[in-house]
Amino acid sequence: TAPFSLITGPCQLESLDHARMMAETIAEACAPTGTRFIFKASYDKANRSSITTERGLGMDEGLTILSKIRDEFGVPILTDVHDAAQCGPAGEVVDVIQIPAFLCRQTDLLLAAGRTGCAINIKKGQFLAPWDMENVAAKVASTGNESILLCDRGTSFGYNTLVSDFRGLPIMARTGYPVVFDATHSVQQPGGQGTTSGGQREFAPVLARAAVAVGVSALFIETHQDPDNAPSDGPNMIPVEKMGTLIGQLRALDDLTKSQPPIGL
Amino acid sequence: TAPFSLITGPCQLESLDHARMMAETIAEACAPTGTRFIFKASYDKANRSSITTERGLGMDEGLTILSKIRDEFGVPILTDVHDAAQCGPAGEVVDVIQIPAFLCRQTDLLLAAGRTGCAINIKKGQFLAPWDMENVAAKVASTGNESILLCDRGTSFGYNTLVSDFRGLPIMARTGYPVVFDATHSVQQPGGQGTTSGGQREFAPVLARAAVAVGVSALFIETHQDPDNAPSDGPNMIPVEKMGTLIGQLRALDDLTKSQPPIGL
Amino acid sequence: TAPFSLITGPCQLESLDHARMMAETIAEACAPTGTRFIFKASYDKANRSSITTERGLGMDEGLTILSKIRDEFGVPILTDVHDAAQCGPAGEVVDVIQIPAFLCRQTDLLLAAGRTGCAINIKKGQFLAPWDMENVAAKVASTGNESILLCDRGTSFGYNTLVSDFRGLPIMARTGYPVVFDATHSVQQPGGQGTTSGGQREFAPVLARAAVAVGVSALFIETHQDPDNAPSDGPNMIPVEKMGTLIGQLRALDDLTKSQPPIGL
Amino acid sequence: TAPFSLITGPCQLESLDHARMMAETIAEACAPTGTRFIFKASYDKANRSSITTERGLGMDEGLTILSKIRDEFGVPILTDVHDAAQCGPAGEVVDVIQIPAFLCRQTDLLLAAGRTGCAINIKKGQFLAPWDMENVAAKVASTGNESILLCDRGTSFGYNTLVSDFRGLPIMARTGYPVVFDATHSVQQPGGQGTTSGGQREFAPVLARAAVAVGVSALFIETHQDPDNAPSDGPNMIPVEKMGTLIGQLRALDDLTKSQPPIGL
Repeated sequence: TAPFSLITGPCQLESLDHARMMAETIAEACAPTGTRFIFKASYDKANRSSITTERGLGMDEGLTILSKIRDEFGVPILTDVHDAAQCGPAGEVVDVIQIPAFLCRQTDLLLAAGRTGCAINIKKGQFLAPWDMENVAAKVASTGNESILLCDRGTSFGYNTLVSDFRGLPIMARTGYPVVFDATHSVQQPGGQGTTSGGQREFAPVLARAAVAVGVSALFIETHQDPDNAPSDGPNMIPVEKMGTLIGQLRALDDLTKSQPPIGL
Repeated sequence: TAPFSLITGPCQLESLDHARMMAETIAEACAPTGTRFIFKASYDKANRSSITTERGLGMDEGLTILSKIRDEFGVPILTDVHDAAQCGPAGEVVDVIQIPAFLCRQTDLLLAAGRTGCAINIKKGQFLAPWDMENVAAKVASTGNESILLCDRGTSFGYNTLVSDFRGLPIMARTGYPVVFDATHSVQQPGGQGTTSGGQREFAPVLARAAVAVGVSALFIETHQDPDNAPSDGPNMIPVEKMGTLIGQLRALDDLTKSQPPIGL
Repeated sequence: TAPFSLITGPCQLESLDHARMMAETIAEACAPTGTRFIFKASYDKANRSSITTERGLGMDEGLTILSKIRDEFGVPILTDVHDAAQCGPAGEVVDVIQIPAFLCRQTDLLLAAGRTGCAINIKKGQFLAPWDMENVAAKVASTGNESILLCDRGTSFGYNTLVSDFRGLPIMARTGYPVVFDATHSVQQPGGQGTTSGGQREFAPVLARAAVAVGVSALFIETHQDPDNAPSDGPNMIPVEKMGTLIGQLRALDDLTKSQPPIGL
Repeated sequence: TAPFSLITGPCQLESLDHARMMAETIAEACAPTGTRFIFKASYDKANRSSITTERGLGMDEGLTILSKIRDEFGVPILTDVHDAAQCGPAGEVVDVIQIPAFLCRQTDLLLAAGRTGCAINIKKGQFLAPWDMENVAAKVASTGNESILLCDRGTSFGYNTLVSDFRGLPIMARTGYPVVFDATHSVQQPGGQGTTSGGQREFAPVLARAAVAVGVSALFIETHQDPDNAPSDGPNMIPVEKMGTLIGQLRALDDLTKSQPPIGL
């Protein structure tokens, strides 16, 4: 099977120049291992903990920037949508539409996303079991679109904490759809800093390693040149200057994992 | 303090005749104790487990029915909305707009709901801690609308299970907003029957009693004349013929509770 | 059905004088409502978070004190045991032997306790479901001793947190054994203060109210004249001067609850 | 750093002949990779779900068998103890004394185990956070015995389910003590079959892979020639004929992991 693809980029679009800089730095980090990457950035943080934190550039400016990155770098683009009406415009520009975890049961959004014909990356709700995702995927598939990815970004575990259950990856893979592991949101501490979410960046590579050793089609890792000053998700993003080393280690692990035959039990 | 209000009705609107029958039966159940009720029904089940189950009558027909019930019975009406564009039309008809639990962090929805001037009943996400609801309420309050209710309908506890943490009621009450306990969704088993959610109806009165003894401003209890054949949420709804007895017992408990002074510790 | 009994006392035996003072103060708090109480105190805290915290007086001195309290005050006594060999000596002195939650699956301890002929109060392990307690009780019952109480003291919920699932009370009651709710350990935050457990005393009356409204045979509430300086469990104990008011309110709630017929669903 | 050691054997001692057969088959499975193994078996299942299931051979016969296996195969032996009095006799025979998860906070047991001078493998309670194990280890260390291993066997996650939080391995490693991952008990479903625990054997290799990729000093994997007919823990044990392949794959993963420098974040 193929090496993992990497869905990566800053959490939030900041400007065209920033997006260019990030895409270029990421491309360099991926080059040595020939890792395919999909550039991810959000034009709107529509569900932040608090009303007082930044939401981003908005859909029009955001999609314009993403379109330029796509053309200039020749990379596929992923962005997330927040209501059904956004799917059409986003689908004109991006290759992968992402359904946020909180919204993964919203039928209209799933159907509108499916109808774009884009690939659809559905984040598993923190409130769902991995086996519940089969019904979620079936909503998208009912539109005739079978380009579906199922992504684990952690499961509610007590308050303000997520846990990653790695049994979930093979369980979701039973659907036949590619499975993605989101290493940076899985280490979020939702609401953990009062008006923003906390995070434990140091555990993102730990969980990414576990996921790759279990077996995934893609990894999702948000990154930034200065996480501590990023407009969102700073506590859990990986500094971009560490990405080359991290990708190299994960790719070696992935190559080994995919060379080993499954053990039927 | 005032006796609890009761938010009640069938999960899903079925027809004008059905809504009338339910409103009439509920009114009779509430009359002996003078319990104020708010008629609740949904025009669209927008986030069902599976694409194959019924969604409902749709917004236009649904709001028409709700408007008639409001006029004929003189009761306030509550319904839930699923995207920002629905808030305007719903707000013309209903007294209370409800934000579904999965959507309780969607800023645009909260702002659009707030701007209607209706009371807003926000269900706490199964993935949120009770103290996280302060930030959620602040999004609505930023519109100048302070008619906010905070409603507990259970918290994720392992897979396909919710738990009701009754410390959450006084914690949410610290915001100063009235607190509601949803006794029937709290006994849901999300995704627990494959393509639909299961439920444990027998525990709804148990949890309602606990909530009333702790102290609430309102209770939320869905009911149906034939729960086992209801189009949604059957496993957790209360048969309407039991509602009179249940309300009577809960009101006696509420009267006693509200007569007892708090014990400062 | 009978009013609830109250299992109460300081977490840890401190001295004969202290035990006398506590028993006397508690007796006064119980007198106005005629509430039957069982005096509870531990001679050994055998499973504290850290090796550096106080364990207590030891079995010999502890049982001597408990025996005197029993004689002087004419109250039944409860204490907890930590291995099978302690059951015999403890059983000579006390009326109720308590099995700690962590030890509730230890077959030898359950059998030795059962063989004393004392009543056995088994705390549900934080790691067990309420329905798992049927098998636990059966271990004691296999000795021919059917004087069994099943006690809920909270269930693991993420890290360093417990949650009280009030569905558990009727589930455990299906065994036919009396059910006890432990209001003060249920608000512990295990390990929450580094080398000791934290607690949220202010929620103990909240959870006690919920339990009484659901229906219990007994309540378990630890108390102290100066909780903040108690040798163990201070953060969750109730100041003894509040006990009279608390008992009075809970008894009124209990009387009402037990006067209301069950609603079959 | 050194390759992982493997703690392995049948859950329960069945007979000398059975133990010999298992030790021999395991030795063959370990030989190709030169994997060091520690033979594990229990002489008493002291905390089974139900009184009606088999407990085992008892301490005297069990220790005699373990002693013979140690001599005949020249392998270190691990067994678990259930009260302080067992530590002395067990410590005469075995190399590693194991503290069961339910008992990991029992101070007297930890002290008695520590005083044997054996290595002590402490299973993290399903009710404890990984950072709580520092205090647990300190109880053993207070005896002057620093030969301590900390073992993760899953954490309570809702009812009848465990989850493996792989952040726990590096968190426990901060103590400086070697960290063990128990792959077969982590897939138990406690109480999940009524009077016995269920299990999901197929996920044991999945979780073992994740643990090795994160980094461990030892793995714990129970095995049997016929798990479906084993006297205990059958649902989660690995068939012994699969062990050679499994060990080979895990060792390759371990070699790669330990060749990769840590990424400081």
